Amino acid sequence: MNVQVISSVNEARTEDLQHKTVIVIDVLRATSTMLTALANGCRDITPVETVIQAKQLQENGVLLGGERNCKKIPGFDFGNSPLEYTESEVNGKSLVITTTNGTRAIQKAGKASRILIGSLLNARACAERVVSTCGEAVILCSGTNDAFALEDGLCAGLIAQELIDHMPSSKQVTLNDLGLSMLYAYRDVSDRLPETLLSCVNGKRLTRLGFRDDVLHCARVNVLPFAPAVQDGKIAASAACL
Amino acid sequence: MNVQVISSVNEARTEDLQHKTVIVIDVLRATSTMLTALANGCRDITPVETVIQAKQLQENGVLLGGERNCKKIPGFDFGNSPLEYTESEVNGKSLVITTTNGTRAIQKAGKASRILIGSLLNARACAERVVSTCGEAVILCSGTNDAFALEDGLCAGLIAQELIDHMPSSKQVTLNDLGLSMLYAYRDVSDRLPETLLSCVNGKRLTRLGFRDDVLHCARVNVLPFAPAVQDGKIAASAACL
Repeated sequence: MNVQVISSVNEARTEDLQHKTVIVIDVLRATSTMLTALANGCRDITPVETVIQAKQLQENGVLLGGERNCKKIPGFDFGNSPLEYTESEVNGKSLVITTTNGTRAIQKAGKASRILIGSLLNARACAERVVSTCGEAVILCSGTNDAFALEDGLCAGLIAQELIDHMPSSKQVTLNDLGLSMLYAYRDVSDRLPETLLSCVNGKRLTRLGFRDDVLHCARVNVLPFAPAVQDGKIAASAACL
Repeated sequence: MNVQVISSVNEARTEDLQHKTVIVIDVLRATSTMLTALANGCRDITPVETVIQAKQLQENGVLLGGERNCKKIPGFDFGNSPLEYTESEVNGKSLVITTTNGTRAIQKAGKASRILIGSLLNARACAERVVSTCGEAVILCSGTNDAFALEDGLCAGLIAQELIDHMPSSKQVTLNDLGLSMLYAYRDVSDRLPETLLSCVNGKRLTRLGFRDDVLHCARVNVLPFAPAVQDGKIAASAACL
């Protein structure tokens, strides 16, 4: 199985994503936040690119979440901190989320045959779902403002490791050069992920803004057993995704 | 000292390179070949972007080297294999070289305050020369056809490690996120560089084309003690560069 890791949304060409399984990663924090909300019973999430689109979808019982430049959007119910999306807040509710990079990556992958939502939290579940399908896979790192972000690269490396570990011995995982380098980088820091995430650009920025606990929450590996897909514009942790 | 690693020529913006020390890397094979020629007594090397420019500089005693798509250019004295540039062939001679990616990276860095020619062969010498200067540094990976190449990334990681090792304790090396990931990747594979280089896209391609020994030659670490700079369009391993 060919697996291509792409360094940021800006680097993704539509033809590289078409007809493939695309795992979208935004470890700090969009995809980690979505997965946390789903784990806490959120019914479904609609990712949208703009604040206006989010507000248009606002109706009774629908909650709005998201950020611009790490900050909560005025009038929204939540920012982009996974710790806000507690069971008491989101259980049974529908969410609409817009973020600077993560939701843009999901939109960019629109022509993929399947889009999975991935982070360190559910890397193994993503790999298991990819292994169970045929065809090629792309791991799309959202990055930050069109630049590569370390935490997304390390997550790509972890998913690559999980793919290698879970692929039947009759098949081989062939990574592109960026994927190989992220696999090696992940192996080097796998025993010190929290401090590594705190030391990268986004980790430092979030710590400065008071979100150090978010970084530590998002640095946990394989704690969620589901890999949700985007279906009809919505993300749900339905039984089919487990 | 801020050190920015850039993944390929395509990703380099002129403003990121201006007024900085830029180390240009094309491990397989342009910069490794240039360094090998200089180590074997070549007087100076003029890197040019096009075959026509190279031919215009051809005169008595000047040798032409280079490649397009890994193959020697018709009418040239050498291809891009470092093993061709032996002492008996190049000692005391001037060379003009054009390659697909490496010479393009050198041209792109034209507005840097200093351009150094780097590879695994002379990574420590590059780091020592950067440490002895003030200001910021950029490690520009040439990549291959605008895509990231693993061997260049690992070399960037090695140079980052050497910078950390040689920086006075009063100063700190601050790497961008790509630089951090390459540092970690290098640390993971540092004890198996030859097989790692043989396993990446360019390593496989060169092996298929009969250049396996070139890959092994270029995978040697810190065997050359000089970090030549581009001065007045030429590269020379003069005493000032040692």
